Amino acid sequence: MGNLYIGLLHYPMRNRKGEIVATATTSMDIHDIARSARTYGVARYFVVTPVPSQREISWRIRGFWTEGERALEESRRGEAMEYVTIAEDLEETTGSIEAAEGEAPYLVATSARRGGKVVIGYDELRRRLRTDARPVYILFGTGWGMADELIEACDAILPPIMPDSEFNHLSVRAAAAIVLDRVAGDRESSDALET
Amino acid sequence: MGNLYIGLLHYPMRNRKGEIVATATTSMDIHDIARSARTYGVARYFVVTPVPSQREISWRIRGFWTEGERALEESRRGEAMEYVTIAEDLEETTGSIEAAEGEAPYLVATSARRGGKVVIGYDELRRRLRTDARPVYILFGTGWGMADELIEACDAILPPIMPDSEFNHLSVRAAAAIVLDRVAGDRESSDALET
Repeated sequence: MGNLYIGLLHYPMRNRKGEIVATATTSMDIHDIARSARTYGVARYFVVTPVPSQREISWRIRGFWTEGERALEESRRGEAMEYVTIAEDLEETTGSIEAAEGEAPYLVATSARRGGKVVIGYDELRRRLRTDARPVYILFGTGWGMADELIEACDAILPPIMPDSEFNHLSVRAAAAIVLDRVAGDRESSDALET
Repeated sequence: MGNLYIGLLHYPMRNRKGEIVATATTSMDIHDIARSARTYGVARYFVVTPVPSQREISWRIRGFWTEGERALEESRRGEAMEYVTIAEDLEETTGSIEAAEGEAPYLVATSARRGGKVVIGYDELRRRLRTDARPVYILFGTGWGMADELIEACDAILPPIMPDSEFNHLSVRAAAAIVLDRVAGDRESSDALET
């Protein structure tokens, strides 16, 4: 069984015109995805941005719950925030995974659009995580999605979550929750059928 | 195949001390869950609060995206917000479903804790939606969860999303996304196995 890592990337992203930009980090993305990550046993959740002031704000949001009085509160929110690390770029995060695990992670992109990249199905990734010791690192984009060069740097990409829906504009908070559930969640029927 | 409805309830909820309170509506809950609802083909998403000023704010948040200039924007966010209705209490929402459908919905509670209520599994609810014409209405709580009387008023309850996780404190935005995916989402393997 391999460890699962996730990253929320803020650069290089597309804006609504398709231009490459750095998007802003948000408190809600850090909190919601940290809670989902912790629920699904994710080893570490990286919030990645090249903008120094955004990293500072992100560390402060994390520290608010993990240090001082708040850390002792009943809500256990700090416990989820402990698993958050703020980083400057993708290389920093893959380097830190490699240092912890002894091997580079299998890097998986996500996108709401279909692309030319090698696709790995949700069930295939789920099986891989259970049967292969190599860590898996899933990347989530912000804004209007990851730049192609970022997707190209990955080993594979997950298919869109609901490719046949008329509307496919989930928030990244919802998308991350669903991907984690599909890849690392309890599954009544399919698990029963597999055994 | 029955229509699927969801509701986000703000009363009667428990606060962290277990007292019964009305929680505050938030812009993020309306937006995120509207986008998830639209992606999964939900017929209507009810935001339910007894507090008149909170209903007013909620209508204004909805109107910001569905009326005037914003409605024409490329982001298609208004398209998700069209499916949002703000209501005063549960009876108002079940009444409106009954008026539209000709029969009362099958009412399903959700909770992060196990309870004494009749449990319907995710796969069972998924099959029910596909094979039974009766509408299904899933309720989500806020704060520290629904009051027992509210759960008692439902026909059944879904099990906790990750009952065996050390940490089970998903945001309601993440929980709603995961429940919709389990009940109404595309499923590679289990669907293939069912046919």
